[in-house]
Amino acid sequence: MSFNSFGKLFRVTTWGESHGPAIGCVVDGCPPLIPLSEKDIQPWLDLRRPGQSSFTTMRQEADQVKILSGVFEGKTTGTPISLLIENTDQRSKDYSNIAQSYRPGHADITYDMKYGIRDYRGGGRSSARETAMRVAAGAIARLILGNKITIRGALVQIGDKPINPANWSWDTVKTNPFFCPDASIVPVWEEYLRNIRKEGSSIGAVIEVIAEGVPAGLGAPIYGKLDADIAHAMMGINAVKGVEIGEGFNAALLRGEENADPIYMKDGEITFGSNHAGGILGGISTGQPITVRFAVKPTSSISIPKPSINKACEAVEVITKGRHDPCVGIRAVPVGEAMMACVLADHLLRHRAQIGCK
Amino acid sequence: MSFNSFGKLFRVTTWGESHGPAIGCVVDGCPPLIPLSEKDIQPWLDLRRPGQSSFTTMRQEADQVKILSGVFEGKTTGTPISLLIENTDQRSKDYSNIAQSYRPGHADITYDMKYGIRDYRGGGRSSARETAMRVAAGAIARLILGNKITIRGALVQIGDKPINPANWSWDTVKTNPFFCPDASIVPVWEEYLRNIRKEGSSIGAVIEVIAEGVPAGLGAPIYGKLDADIAHAMMGINAVKGVEIGEGFNAALLRGEENADPIYMKDGEITFGSNHAGGILGGISTGQPITVRFAVKPTSSISIPKPSINKACEAVEVITKGRHDPCVGIRAVPVGEAMMACVLADHLLRHRAQIGCK
Amino acid sequence: MSFNSFGKLFRVTTWGESHGPAIGCVVDGCPPLIPLSEKDIQPWLDLRRPGQSSFTTMRQEADQVKILSGVFEGKTTGTPISLLIENTDQRSKDYSNIAQSYRPGHADITYDMKYGIRDYRGGGRSSARETAMRVAAGAIARLILGNKITIRGALVQIGDKPINPANWSWDTVKTNPFFCPDASIVPVWEEYLRNIRKEGSSIGAVIEVIAEGVPAGLGAPIYGKLDADIAHAMMGINAVKGVEIGEGFNAALLRGEENADPIYMKDGEITFGSNHAGGILGGISTGQPITVRFAVKPTSSISIPKPSINKACEAVEVITKGRHDPCVGIRAVPVGEAMMACVLADHLLRHRAQIGCK
Amino acid sequence: MSFNSFGKLFRVTTWGESHGPAIGCVVDGCPPLIPLSEKDIQPWLDLRRPGQSSFTTMRQEADQVKILSGVFEGKTTGTPISLLIENTDQRSKDYSNIAQSYRPGHADITYDMKYGIRDYRGGGRSSARETAMRVAAGAIARLILGNKITIRGALVQIGDKPINPANWSWDTVKTNPFFCPDASIVPVWEEYLRNIRKEGSSIGAVIEVIAEGVPAGLGAPIYGKLDADIAHAMMGINAVKGVEIGEGFNAALLRGEENADPIYMKDGEITFGSNHAGGILGGISTGQPITVRFAVKPTSSISIPKPSINKACEAVEVITKGRHDPCVGIRAVPVGEAMMACVLADHLLRHRAQIGCK
Repeated sequence: MSFNSFGKLFRVTTWGESHGPAIGCVVDGCPPLIPLSEKDIQPWLDLRRPGQSSFTTMRQEADQVKILSGVFEGKTTGTPISLLIENTDQRSKDYSNIAQSYRPGHADITYDMKYGIRDYRGGGRSSARETAMRVAAGAIARLILGNKITIRGALVQIGDKPINPANWSWDTVKTNPFFCPDASIVPVWEEYLRNIRKEGSSIGAVIEVIAEGVPAGLGAPIYGKLDADIAHAMMGINAVKGVEIGEGFNAALLRGEENADPIYMKDGEITFGSNHAGGILGGISTGQPITVRFAVKPTSSISIPKPSINKACEAVEVITKGRHDPCVGIRAVPVGEAMMACVLADHLLRHRAQIGCK
Repeated sequence: MSFNSFGKLFRVTTWGESHGPAIGCVVDGCPPLIPLSEKDIQPWLDLRRPGQSSFTTMRQEADQVKILSGVFEGKTTGTPISLLIENTDQRSKDYSNIAQSYRPGHADITYDMKYGIRDYRGGGRSSARETAMRVAAGAIARLILGNKITIRGALVQIGDKPINPANWSWDTVKTNPFFCPDASIVPVWEEYLRNIRKEGSSIGAVIEVIAEGVPAGLGAPIYGKLDADIAHAMMGINAVKGVEIGEGFNAALLRGEENADPIYMKDGEITFGSNHAGGILGGISTGQPITVRFAVKPTSSISIPKPSINKACEAVEVITKGRHDPCVGIRAVPVGEAMMACVLADHLLRHRAQIGCK
Repeated sequence: MSFNSFGKLFRVTTWGESHGPAIGCVVDGCPPLIPLSEKDIQPWLDLRRPGQSSFTTMRQEADQVKILSGVFEGKTTGTPISLLIENTDQRSKDYSNIAQSYRPGHADITYDMKYGIRDYRGGGRSSARETAMRVAAGAIARLILGNKITIRGALVQIGDKPINPANWSWDTVKTNPFFCPDASIVPVWEEYLRNIRKEGSSIGAVIEVIAEGVPAGLGAPIYGKLDADIAHAMMGINAVKGVEIGEGFNAALLRGEENADPIYMKDGEITFGSNHAGGILGGISTGQPITVRFAVKPTSSISIPKPSINKACEAVEVITKGRHDPCVGIRAVPVGEAMMACVLADHLLRHRAQIGCK
Repeated sequence: MSFNSFGKLFRVTTWGESHGPAIGCVVDGCPPLIPLSEKDIQPWLDLRRPGQSSFTTMRQEADQVKILSGVFEGKTTGTPISLLIENTDQRSKDYSNIAQSYRPGHADITYDMKYGIRDYRGGGRSSARETAMRVAAGAIARLILGNKITIRGALVQIGDKPINPANWSWDTVKTNPFFCPDASIVPVWEEYLRNIRKEGSSIGAVIEVIAEGVPAGLGAPIYGKLDADIAHAMMGINAVKGVEIGEGFNAALLRGEENADPIYMKDGEITFGSNHAGGILGGISTGQPITVRFAVKPTSSISIPKPSINKACEAVEVITKGRHDPCVGIRAVPVGEAMMACVLADHLLRHRAQIGCK
């Protein structure tokens, strides 16, 4: 079973391979009468687009999105929205060397193990190129959420070099090629990554995404808990190996009285004295900011040789030539934001279905 | 929208509140002709059952499971299997003090925020009691997986006291009340937890679950990736705040050549030189052991007072009286195993649907 | 794949066999704060209950429903509602003769073909007894729909004896054992069925269900059309072989100008000059009454011998002894009503999710 | 909630409006390694294509399908297959007169009632043009089913002029523009339809679809019964108002001993003496031919004036100018076949998931 849809009511189905003619998605369940054009989607895609700095892949893709259905006279009609991006810079020859052998640490081998066939060009379906459609769908999800809800992400760690949270500035995020919120570490990362690229290697990273303004009550316990659905969304992003909500693994170290966020009334509103919970209790949003972190492994496409096998099960050494991200975590920032937006939009509709509107 | 089912083909729907007449689940999609009786389920429930040591809640529950459908002459018939456990030790009066106020760090307040009503007795639907049905369903999932697949869990950290992985012994897990694989730390944990309980507090923990013998090829990319579904399953367990596959957050520290598991042929079989991937690449199982860790926060049911509000939005101090687990992570071990079993059984059927049987 | 749930947001999962200890269902997704007790469900079950006249099976079942979860202090909590009915009159011996052979026209043989095993006692899972849980779920669905929506069914044909529509009276439906709306045909049916029973035979029937007060706009095109979902619901009732909406098969005979219902304004409301559409256009409700008819085949449990085979594939003659409905269509009336209620409740929630509330 | 996907494991999502830039679909869950190119799909589309005779709409569409993903080196890869057809002959001006008013009997008004907006050009999403994608998906479904399963449809009635079943010839179906299996009635229909078109009217029809070679055991009781899923599929086709399996409504007239198909052994195979059941018992296939009939209403796009209202709720008379099918039932034949193929392919995979392969 292939399963290329996510969401229950705001439902996104993606398709396409890295080096096929195009990639695309169908967004189903979008409420009607929302103003929508390509201009609402393209800026988010541009943030994720490759080839924008020397720290991401040099593949050149215009990533121009087209809306093929579901919008009439500038507004959504409630029918499925089909989005399409043509692949323009495939350069299949770059990948000819991996047609017959498997990159260690890559999905090359498992696609073959499962399906007995794989489109090896550029990673085929397993390529991070697919995440462009997540970003496109996320742009529509943001319109459903409205501008009271803000979803922002940042890169908070590369290798063993975390940011200093005390320096956090959302403005800074927009001014560097890393989505880094700490201006002081940007030059450190620049040099660090330059060396890693020079050595033909790659490095892991940690991303944090924060959603503010989310109303209390979203989440569908027991098996559609908001945190579980966020974990699913983030762990499903290429190369992600860990997900945390609120305190995350640090919660293991805490005692009950340290971890439990006290509750107060303030100006007639329910408020909390802290946010160890990361905005979710019992799988339901509290109204506090929802905070999630996820860890991205270093890409397996490196030019340092590693032992592997080929399709004939013979030993080979594999080197990945071509254009690759030394730190795929960088471009995962807009993808993480988009997945958060999609999960929240879905839960907003799910909540409205059961509870009604107030 | 309430959403109390999980799995696509091996599909479990649970119901019931902590202090209602019973809890139960319906297991749908189980293949026919599998020998099944209560004896196949009860031992797993007994592992999770409360009241077995001074380190878990003293609530006394027989947790006797009954099969009400789907089995005929000792075998599954392919029709839904209904399981039911009567609640025998509710003692509603213990919880009368929390009827009107919200425990900080607990789902009390979010259930009210969402639904405008909650069964406050023993946490109602949000009680960890619900996890008994996950364990029961997991027992059936294990029968589908067969005995070539082994799923085992262990508690690897309480508070700031991790085990020493070098001491790992699965036999040890069975000989202490913590599911601890490191005999040397058991007495340390005993004293540590005794003190925490004495102080009316609680503490977090980390659980590791390992599935061995899982065939290569399970997983349904892009949005039904095996690791994403495992993350969903684990993050959906009560009190879980973080989930890692393989290297998890540690992968952020690694370079590409460190993280990528080399591939070899050995005795005609594909093997890997390491398992940083945790048995999953591109959302598809590699055939290596699948390793997942998850962090459990300290329970919010403590007898140390914390500021909160009541239903009338007045400031109150909340203390939870009654019988509680000082470390809910302990009983999460069999629950984590069960969720892994359910996810794998579901993916085994999903794989067979698309690919066929070999 | 077994698949024992229906509905997307108002979601019902049923379980249980005719002669197991109990049957039951889980109703998930019900909005919170709806007053609910067994008294809201039992009257609908009593309408379907066997043993109430000589024209339905003489099996005696109290069919006392119990609510096991999802209701607190008399109101729904938004968590799953578990309903259970104990089987009290199983008399397994009545069915011993069909343990080894297959009734022609019955699911006996296909359950064995599919699963390789079947609970032969009373038809097991394929028994019409399962429909009791549909009626119970339908009772909850009615509460969601509220009292502006009226769902009523009637038996409009037995064998070649249709009612005269000109005599239609809903009051009459309540005064005879057939749910017949035409008083003049009741004595005809009585004698007709008495003879059929005496001969050990059975007969088919046609049921009509009408939902009035349904708001315009329900339905989820293209593949969740309201009429398609109603067709699925009705065709899934035991023994149903045909379903019609509005003009149904008669529409094949009509010309465009005859079939198209003219549209007018009347007292500021959109009205239609006729209802050939049966209240649905393009899969979306128009606000007119939704009318559906379905045909029920004669039960295959008859005492007239028919050629068949046994499990050993030897030729046998099969006679069904015991207590059976000469016309299963009669008790299908409350079942059809219940399925309509469930489909409409589901679509009400689905509509609210996408469109919001007005 | 919009809902534009069907199938559980063989899952099709369609998108597109009649007069947008293109229509398309995503076929997810297709097994890998199936040879597939546009040549496998195009012939089926050509059968449905408009403009082929004077008895269907004169709209000229090349309906050239393109495969955009999921196929590599001529074989399916197990990843989603994206299909796209460009709209080339939209002529929007033809529809300008219906932009503001509602055709009686058409989905114009209900789309506006539901969504508050509609793409009125050519019926937008509610246009029968969408069915091209069903036919395309059906072509892939046929490849999964393999050539032991044959699915064929025919038009068996136009208006009050049914075929004579005694004359049935599948060869004849291919030789006339009506998919008519009875050569003797073809000239009658020709003249009949010519007159209806001349008068600017339209007429209903009945289609029959027969699937032969379907293995016993397909179907997922209780709520995924094969007949219920077929009923859903057929009732969801534009303009369909009734669906019958096997005897259908005629079953209401039969006695139990007439309706029950006797079972015999013949050459070591289970056989049946008749097929009143239409190949399905208890929602599970028997191995006999599956027979379904569905009724299609006359199109509401006629040039005979009917009273209606406009968006401003003022009374108007509506006439549909432009090119329309006098009998939309004709082109529903390949659509009905395609839906049958999709349902069977889905159930084949579902069956394999639960039961395994033999």
